[in-house]
Amino acid sequence: MRKLSMQELNRLSSDDFRAAEKQPIIIILDHIRSMHNVGSVFRTADAFLVESIYLCGYTPQPPHRDIHKTALGATETVAWEYFPSTEAAVAAAKQKGYSVWAVEQTNQSIALQKLPVANTGMALVFGNEVEGVRDAVLSLCDGSIEIPQWGMKHSLNVSIAAGIVLWELTRIQLLNQNN
Amino acid sequence: MRKLSMQELNRLSSDDFRAAEKQPIIIILDHIRSMHNVGSVFRTADAFLVESIYLCGYTPQPPHRDIHKTALGATETVAWEYFPSTEAAVAAAKQKGYSVWAVEQTNQSIALQKLPVANTGMALVFGNEVEGVRDAVLSLCDGSIEIPQWGMKHSLNVSIAAGIVLWELTRIQLLNQNN
Repeated sequence: MRKLSMQELNRLSSDDFRAAEKQPIIIILDHIRSMHNVGSVFRTADAFLVESIYLCGYTPQPPHRDIHKTALGATETVAWEYFPSTEAAVAAAKQKGYSVWAVEQTNQSIALQKLPVANTGMALVFGNEVEGVRDAVLSLCDGSIEIPQWGMKHSLNVSIAAGIVLWELTRIQLLNQNN
Repeated sequence: MRKLSMQELNRLSSDDFRAAEKQPIIIILDHIRSMHNVGSVFRTADAFLVESIYLCGYTPQPPHRDIHKTALGATETVAWEYFPSTEAAVAAAKQKGYSVWAVEQTNQSIALQKLPVANTGMALVFGNEVEGVRDAVLSLCDGSIEIPQWGMKHSLNVSIAAGIVLWELTRIQLLNQNN
């Protein structure tokens, strides 16, 4: 057993990435504080061919050295837009015909492993590290997705939650492996 | 739709967490550099009831302020041990009868979505942020698991990779939702 070389991994060039067909998934970041979390979401979005990231409110935007430290170049390839208001970002996703899901623990959440396969595009809203998705934004969403958790802590780190939900959607849709 | 309160989330107390039955999963961190990544793995291990984390080589150990910033208390509850050598950590996991899997892109990797359900405990080895799992450690593993990726970047951040693999095992084992 030996590690694959970068060449064997056969990754896309920047140009190939931009031209590649993406998954119809938009990530909406609702007032994320940490550069590290934003950079990490970019890097994961690259790996799973996410269509676009909407950075909202005070969520930091590239280019920034501290975002780059975790994104490692993914801000150059993954498409993104800035919206002063998260509500406007949600409206923009709905305008495209995408269903909008908060990744949040609510009284109506669907457990991640029970997520129905969507036939349309999906927008996923991830909230601030402390406050989560704000109530005003939550009320605009079509539903909420909860990652089951059994521990002592309230929630997962937002970049980890994004990684898990994106993997689950990728497994179901891109790999055609239904639940 | 409204967010659940901390009380409604019904999380475990520290004592309840320590007493709770864990998933037979050991996480082996092979020379991880970043405090942030170590803290994040602790927090995710809490959420998914991981049995123990083996911190190896120069992987930073709690207590440390910068680990705490991302672990948010999970270092107080999730069991962990320090091993100067990762090879010794792998041997300790095998001694317990656990199969040992590197999360790494190798010429023999099994794609994560094709991972067979293990009847025994599993140890997952995650490697250094730049070098990955070292060859000497890889040669001791029973196999390797690869998270499929389609982007430009070489790999996912190690704490994101840990979150995704732990979720996949949890979905299959704890939620009994087979592929």
